Amino acid sequence: MVIEILKEKSADFFVMQSGNANFFYATKFRSSSLMFYLLGIDGTELLLLPEMELGRAIRESRVKEVASYEMLDYEQKLREIGDSRKVIAKILVEILKEGRAKKVMIPSDFPAFFAFSLKDNFEVEVVENPFLKLRAIKNAQEISEIRWNCLKIIEVFPKILDFLRTHKLLCEEVRTLLEGELWKSGLLAEDTICVSGKLSADPHELGRGKIENHLLIDVFPKNKRGYYADFTRTIILKDDAELLEMLSAVLEAQKIAFSMLKEGVNGKDVHNAVKDTFKSHGYETRKGEGFVHSTGHGIGLEVHEEPRMGEIDVTLKSGMVVTVEPGLYYKKIGGVRVEDVVLIRKSDCEILTPFERFLV
Amino acid sequence: MVIEILKEKSADFFVMQSGNANFFYATKFRSSSLMFYLLGIDGTELLLLPEMELGRAIRESRVKEVASYEMLDYEQKLREIGDSRKVIAKILVEILKEGRAKKVMIPSDFPAFFAFSLKDNFEVEVVENPFLKLRAIKNAQEISEIRWNCLKIIEVFPKILDFLRTHKLLCEEVRTLLEGELWKSGLLAEDTICVSGKLSADPHELGRGKIENHLLIDVFPKNKRGYYADFTRTIILKDDAELLEMLSAVLEAQKIAFSMLKEGVNGKDVHNAVKDTFKSHGYETRKGEGFVHSTGHGIGLEVHEEPRMGEIDVTLKSGMVVTVEPGLYYKKIGGVRVEDVVLIRKSDCEILTPFERFLV
Repeated sequence: MVIEILKEKSADFFVMQSGNANFFYATKFRSSSLMFYLLGIDGTELLLLPEMELGRAIRESRVKEVASYEMLDYEQKLREIGDSRKVIAKILVEILKEGRAKKVMIPSDFPAFFAFSLKDNFEVEVVENPFLKLRAIKNAQEISEIRWNCLKIIEVFPKILDFLRTHKLLCEEVRTLLEGELWKSGLLAEDTICVSGKLSADPHELGRGKIENHLLIDVFPKNKRGYYADFTRTIILKDDAELLEMLSAVLEAQKIAFSMLKEGVNGKDVHNAVKDTFKSHGYETRKGEGFVHSTGHGIGLEVHEEPRMGEIDVTLKSGMVVTVEPGLYYKKIGGVRVEDVVLIRKSDCEILTPFERFLV
Repeated sequence: MVIEILKEKSADFFVMQSGNANFFYATKFRSSSLMFYLLGIDGTELLLLPEMELGRAIRESRVKEVASYEMLDYEQKLREIGDSRKVIAKILVEILKEGRAKKVMIPSDFPAFFAFSLKDNFEVEVVENPFLKLRAIKNAQEISEIRWNCLKIIEVFPKILDFLRTHKLLCEEVRTLLEGELWKSGLLAEDTICVSGKLSADPHELGRGKIENHLLIDVFPKNKRGYYADFTRTIILKDDAELLEMLSAVLEAQKIAFSMLKEGVNGKDVHNAVKDTFKSHGYETRKGEGFVHSTGHGIGLEVHEEPRMGEIDVTLKSGMVVTVEPGLYYKKIGGVRVEDVVLIRKSDCEILTPFERFLV
């Protein structure tokens, strides 16, 4: 698929830097070192990295051809040039010249320093990383990773609810409790949102202090293989008519989204259906209040990845795993959001986080 | 300091993207959203982000002026252009034009897509991010964060040693045990190296399976405020002359490094002294074996940051916090490394991880 794009763009190589999920997906190799992945239009692949990573890369990476900077005269060049980054840019340019590159394709997040070095030597086209689209459709192994994460979350969640209903807790304590339980299950959660009161009108506010009439919990843990899940519930702890009404509208919107989700559907249509549901309930969106975010996003090696179900057209495909997370936010009341992970199938979707949604 | 560089380069603005430690350091604001930080030569600062982050940014960020894409006609532009990234690039260019920018300075990791958009409209110079140098010298609060992390590690480590000496464990079990104990102490460790046997000849091999004659543990946990520590010990569990000799050489090299470390010293000289010590012990470095990495690196909001103590000159300054981690690696034997965190002071250094090093 990347080769098709190279052909379409008449480019000779695609070059990608390390330090992101696309790189791991393409190479199956992880390291904090600065590395590059090169793919030629003829299908040749090369992983370029420091000598120190060579042995491990040969053992672990999917890419068969691996070269180290040191094999390409890094040390001699460093003595001449005195700047490690310039040396690596020079090596990268030399390799591409050896491969007779005229035009090089780079992803939009390619580091500017190396992008400009390439531009000085080749025609360069910046593209959306093709691996983003590849990653959007999960294989069986990836689905089972995410499924496992989702099951662990819904296994742990009742404990938190019990504790919440029987103890007087602070938002921070709920966060610690939930992250601790997930840790024991092999899931690493950070920056878990546990927010109450008016602060919750900010969708990304982590929350702190006393729990008021409701608590919004949004947790997105990662497992040891690097896959995420993403789950939100809003628990209404004290009778509060406004919050209860908002929760009902959110659940109705989510139900409508679930009913639409299947292969071939446009994510934007789902998003519009959610927006319409809120409108029909009298909930307006303006000036940063109302339904202020998109309906959902893909999940996998990143918490937020392709496809995005929002204002832009996107055709859903079987094997995509997305969140469905309608929410309503008003500064004088607070925020209500419910979020599930679903797997898109040929003729419907499977909810991977089947857990009670009307929590009062 | 950033303004001085702008003056030196005759640039009008420095622009930095979100998603890295420099951005958090500069703004004190964290979010997974795409955001930009702009600093003008006259000292004006602007944080540019999605509407959804606006309220939280106003509350949490150090930057007083905050604008959302939506305030700058994002939605209208998206309808016209249809590509979110292009719209954001357009907004960025418009703001800089309004600020009468002619030349813009960007960091080397600035995303290529936005870098080329800026280049189409302004003169652009790529620089090493000035915040990297600022971050290298820690303030009192940062030192206390790292100090706390180091203390937690050495508090937990004896438990692991006890367990290791009294139980038959696999590498994976030691990792889980150590990461679990650190978790209870408020530290989040991932990818902890627990490696034994010949596999340990790869400095970044995580390790798996049976523990043979020795175990190398390298742990680099992060606390809830985002600060790291980094600590390595090599435990020799069975009498093994080669490993014991390597450990002695490593400890001598480290001791020499400690004795040199203070304000004004060149990190390269420290690195050379470590190399010389290994040579004097007859340990050669070639073809990916021997002392194959640098002597140490700064630690803070990233595990590896400035200053690097290796082949390149760098003047150490009071307030820098660095690791000192000599190691020896031979394919037929395995690897031995010992790593401590030290604080550079006017006339000496303080070891923040005072814990037994000769572990047999």
